Parts: sequence; structure tokens; C-alpha cells
Amino acid sequence: MKRLLVLGADGYLGFPVSLYFASKGWSVHAVDNLSKRHIENIEDIAPLINLPAFKDRFFEWNENYARKDSEKIKSYILDIATNNRQLYKLFEEINPDAIIHFAEQPSAPYSMKGRSEAVNTQVNNITGTLNLIFAIKKFNPSCHLVKLGTMGEYGTPNIDIEEGWLNINHNNRNDRVLFPKKPGSFYHLSKVHDSNNLEYSCRTWGLRITDLNQGIVYGSHTEITKNNNLHTSFHYDSIFGTAINRFISQGLSGNPITIYGTGNQTRAYLHIDDVIKCIDIALNNPAKEGEFKVRNQFTEFKSINELASIVHDALLEIDYSPEIKRIENPRVEEDSHYYNPKNKSFLDLGLKAKNINKNVIIDIAKYLEPYAKSIREYSFMPNIKWKN
Amino acid sequence: MKRLLVLGADGYLGFPVSLYFASKGWSVHAVDNLSKRHIENIEDIAPLINLPAFKDRFFEWNENYARKDSEKIKSYILDIATNNRQLYKLFEEINPDAIIHFAEQPSAPYSMKGRSEAVNTQVNNITGTLNLIFAIKKFNPSCHLVKLGTMGEYGTPNIDIEEGWLNINHNNRNDRVLFPKKPGSFYHLSKVHDSNNLEYSCRTWGLRITDLNQGIVYGSHTEITKNNNLHTSFHYDSIFGTAINRFISQGLSGNPITIYGTGNQTRAYLHIDDVIKCIDIALNNPAKEGEFKVRNQFTEFKSINELASIVHDALLEIDYSPEIKRIENPRVEEDSHYYNPKNKSFLDLGLKAKNINKNVIIDIAKYLEPYAKSIREYSFMPNIKWKN
Repeated sequence: MKRLLVLGADGYLGFPVSLYFASKGWSVHAVDNLSKRHIENIEDIAPLINLPAFKDRFFEWNENYARKDSEKIKSYILDIATNNRQLYKLFEEINPDAIIHFAEQPSAPYSMKGRSEAVNTQVNNITGTLNLIFAIKKFNPSCHLVKLGTMGEYGTPNIDIEEGWLNINHNNRNDRVLFPKKPGSFYHLSKVHDSNNLEYSCRTWGLRITDLNQGIVYGSHTEITKNNNLHTSFHYDSIFGTAINRFISQGLSGNPITIYGTGNQTRAYLHIDDVIKCIDIALNNPAKEGEFKVRNQFTEFKSINELASIVHDALLEIDYSPEIKRIENPRVEEDSHYYNPKNKSFLDLGLKAKNINKNVIIDIAKYLEPYAKSIREYSFMPNIKWKN
Repeated sequence: MKRLLVLGADGYLGFPVSLYFASKGWSVHAVDNLSKRHIENIEDIAPLINLPAFKDRFFEWNENYARKDSEKIKSYILDIATNNRQLYKLFEEINPDAIIHFAEQPSAPYSMKGRSEAVNTQVNNITGTLNLIFAIKKFNPSCHLVKLGTMGEYGTPNIDIEEGWLNINHNNRNDRVLFPKKPGSFYHLSKVHDSNNLEYSCRTWGLRITDLNQGIVYGSHTEITKNNNLHTSFHYDSIFGTAINRFISQGLSGNPITIYGTGNQTRAYLHIDDVIKCIDIALNNPAKEGEFKVRNQFTEFKSINELASIVHDALLEIDYSPEIKRIENPRVEEDSHYYNPKNKSFLDLGLKAKNINKNVIIDIAKYLEPYAKSIREYSFMPNIKWKN
């Protein structure tokens, strides 16, 4: 039985991913440092559906859903950024065949709040990832690391966005180089730093790493987490929430759908179900020894205006009538720009993706509807400015 | 009188640069956290010429060399990475017009020693630089930051190395992007991370930053530091020492000049006098508001074999006869590669550079000769391996 280490297993994606792979025959070991809960507490925000304690979430799965003992998940509270000795012990203990690494501070606005948050985001993300590659090198250099990056690392260049690498010709000479990045926050920068460190560890130590540059994820549940007490951490606030999920929550709670600035900003998106499909594909098609494999993990790209309009129309069909409202953009980003990212590597491996359409939005809205009364409306509005 | 903040003023370059600008009419404020001395102690290495305590070095200058009160330098022991409050107070107090930032862990081998050193190097360098840009943004966004990077950030790409930026055409579209980097150690990576953070702060906050991608510096003294008690921190060991300085020290102490691997590795170099000339030019031609200006700060590039041979021949003339010896390369780097870096931006501004030739080497050797008996021969050999 193959051993899988999931880092950041308390998160929006880490939790459903852990359950999915447990149900698919992996021996799953789930780790989190609970730092997202800590930031939630400090920032006075909360996931839409209350979550049990970290270990209780896995207790629930193990007791009531795992079909056999091998599907049970072992969970660990461990900070991989500050406790490398414990991380090393974990490697000795479980000797993973693969690792999925979500264990990073995931909010761009949080990283832009001030000096302390910028520093903490970068130090946490870089140190955790460095500790991890040193653990891999020391205990199991042939295991496959799947690391979550973000499409936001690329920014909005004026050229097509390839998958991590770029073949260039300059003064009549050729090279294959890391795709030049233009990230839009200290959080996104931390992921660029990670990617550079990871590429180096493949090139120098021969590690096998897949870096997933993931689009913005939307969706409230997966086949597994829709079950009682297995909810995932769904955020709609201005810190951890993202466009589509926030728009639906705004509509459900009788608030306007708020667009930052012109709404022409175009980004890449994917449904939470497709995250799982992509990671499954990535695990089954691992990087080779010494290879830094980059895959762009998204299924389509749309402007904020298009998304707002799809959410608006979907909610109309189920008898909500949200207004669409433009507010000052708290971020520094380009209003209008070229955007053409590639995701060929997943398509070539057979990814069949969902699209953002009325039915998908209605499915999410219907799922969230019973919880809509607990939405904290004050947390929709952004209070962190990129240039404050 | 313009106020200049020099960070890392206890170092090989920070000290001479501080004295030079004090002598040229800047009001100089010199900061260091003494971390290099700490690493020296831990690693059992030492500069060739013993240095007075940090504050005593400036006391010596102020009492015996400063020609008037305005040439006196104020010195501060302060860790910009861990003490941002004190850094902010310093900004309030002196409100600098320009900053020269050398304050980083500068050794590639040290950063490759193990997990702890890799993490400490990246956390120290990134955090110090982040704290600095937050201080600039808060207190004086129009001041000019001159940051020391390294030519090692680029690695050895198969294309010409431009100055920080690259105009590319891809699928018939154009963009100007940060030059893709391929650094060769966790130290070099830390400088790449810094450059990415700095470019972001220019693009987002409108800061004015010059990033100097500096070649490997050689030389024992400047016009000022050759004076009694003003010596700079000259290293010949395998941790802080670099090729030319180490080769000369090996020859002077009757040891073989050791070449790592084939010796075909080609790198960019400059004399310590030219560092000062370049920084003078950079300060006098500041980046504009919002501009991330990158200059490649070197004067020539040569292979290790060429350098060893020049040092060998120069030492022969003054009656040493060092052997040249190849040892296993402790680093992971390309043996034979294309190398064509550009340094047009300094040449266009009138830089007149020294060349590595017999006379320059003899000048250094003669200066060091009286101290050669105190060379710790055991510290020549590299004991840190990139793949250990």
C-alpha cells in the first residue's frame, strides 16, 4: 500500500484531497499546524460551515466513513516550518512514497496587510518548503513531491503563459528557462521563491517534484465532503475567500456582488472536484528523477465581469436577485491585459473538466443555502489595501 | 549634506565603501549585526588581517583620518532582519537620502552546509530586505536603495546575460521580463528571492531601487583601507574566501593553488577599487520612481584556469612558485558552458576598470605578504559539499 503524506490537511483543499486518496487505496497521513484557524481567529473571520477540531474531522472519517482499516487516516498536528525535527521523525516513521504539500499561508490580502504579515508569509512558506526538501533528500530522495503553487505567480504577462518553463531564443542562441514570473503580492512572491528553491533541489540533488500552478478554486463540496460532518473549509470573506465563492455568498445573503475596479481582470479557475482530478493525474504521472515538472492546474479563464454575470444569472434562477456593484480595487493589478495561459499537460492526460456555468453555480448555491444565515456580512468588504 | 545609510558596514566591501563615501561628502551612518564575525567564530576561520571591534574601526577613522567633523561616521550595531523596530527608529532619526545594502549572509558554501544554514541564510537575507523596503515605504519612499545582488543569480545560461531584464518574443508577442535566473546555491537563491521582492516593491509602491548583480570581488585594500588600522576583512578560506584572493593566499603560504574540478567554470570578476567606482556611479545615477534598475557590476570574465595561471605567473615574478592542483569540485556546477554577461550600463557611464593582470596580482600579494605567516592553511580546503 502506497504511503501518502498530505501537508496542510485541515485546509479547503487538503482535507478533501486527504479523504479522496484514502478512499482510493493510499495510506494517508494528514498533517497541519492549524495556522489558518489561528489567522481566522485573529482576523475575526470563519468558514461558512463550522468545522470540528482538526483531529475530530479525521476521527469522523475513520469511524463513520472509512470502509476498512486501511482507509483510516492518521493525523498529526505539526508545524513543518518551525519543527523540522518532528518532520524528520515523521519521515522516518512513515517513509512516504508521495507528498502533497498545501501547507502554506494561502492568502494574498493577508500577506499585504503589513510588514509582519508579509515577513511571516514568506518565512513560513519558504522555511516549510525548505525543511521538506531537506527531509526528502535525507530520508527518501526518490519520493515524489507534489507542491501547490499558483497561477498568480505568473501575473499577467503580455505573452502566452506556458507551463513553468519557456524555450527562448535570444541573440540567436537558445535556452530553456524557468518562465519569468510577475507575481502580484508577497504571498504570490513566496510561491515564486518556493518554485525557485524546488527547481534548484531537482537540478542539484535529483529530487522529483511536480509544481502545480493552480488557478483560483471554487466550489463548496466534493462527492465525499458533502457528507455529514465532513464539510470542507469554505471561505467567502475578503481574506481567504475568492471571487466565485464570495460572489455566491454575497448573493445568498442579500448583498451586492462586489467587483474590484473595472472587472476586466482575467484569471484562471477550476472547480474543487477538478483539483482532485488534477492531483490524481499528477500523482499517477510523477516527475522523473531530477525533473522539476510544472503543470498549470486550471480548467478555464474568465474576467471578473464574466464571473459576476454568470453568478448573477444563476442566482436569479433560484429566486435571488443580487445587484452587481463596482468598488475601488484594493489591489494593485492591471485593469486590462493580455491573458492566455496553457494547461495542455492535464488535457493531454485526459482531464475532463467542469465549466463555470449556471448549473454548477446553482449546485454550489443550493448546497450553501442552509448555512447562509450565518454569513458574517461585514467580512465581505476588503479592508487591506495593497498601497495602504 | 546628503545622508547615506550603509548596511553591512563591517564587511569586506561595506567598510571601505563607508569610508569612501564619508570622504566624498556624504553623511555616513554605518550599520552591522556582526553576524559574519559570528560565523567566523563558529566555523573557525578568520580574516587574514585581524580587525578591531566594529565600533573601534569607525572610532579609528573618526579620530585619525576624518579631515573634518562632517566626515565622521556614526556606527550602529543592529540586526535589520530581527529588529525592525530599531530599524524604523533609525529611519526616523537619520532619514537617509540613499541606502547601500550589503547586510546579507554572503557565503554560498555556508548556505549549502545543511538545512539550518540554508534556512538561516534565506530567512536572514529575505527578512532583512523586506524589513528595509517596509521602512523605506513608511518613512522615505523617495530615497534610493542600492542593493547588492550577485552575478551568481544568473548561473550559466546558454544565452547572453543581459542586465536584469530581457526583451522576449514568444508566439509573436513581446514582453520585457525579469531575466530568468538559474542560481547555484541557497545563498544565490536568496538573492534571487530578494530581487523578486524588490522588483515588486518598485512596481507596486513606486520605490526606487538599483540592484547590483556583482561579480566576484578580489583585492586586499583600497586607497583608504591600506592605511594603518583601516584594513578590510580579507578572507582566503573556503567559506568566505573567493577564487583570486584564495589563490594568492595559497601561493604566499607555500600551498598549491587549488582548482575545483576542470577549471573551465567561467565567472565575472572585479577589483575592490572598481566596486567603489561602480557604487559611486550607481548612487549618482539613481533609479527613477517605480524603477527597478539592474546593473551587472563586474569588469571582466575569465575561467578558473585562466585566473590560476595569472596568479601563478605573477607570484613567480616575486619569487614564489606555487603548484596548480586540481581537486574534486565540491559544488554542483557546469564544467563547460557558454558565458557572455553584459555590463554596458557601467561602461556607458564612464567606468574605467582595472584588469586582472600580473601587476594587479603582485600589488595584492605585496600588500598581504607581511601577514602571510598567520594564514590558517587548514581553512583552504573545502569541507562543505553541495551534494553531501
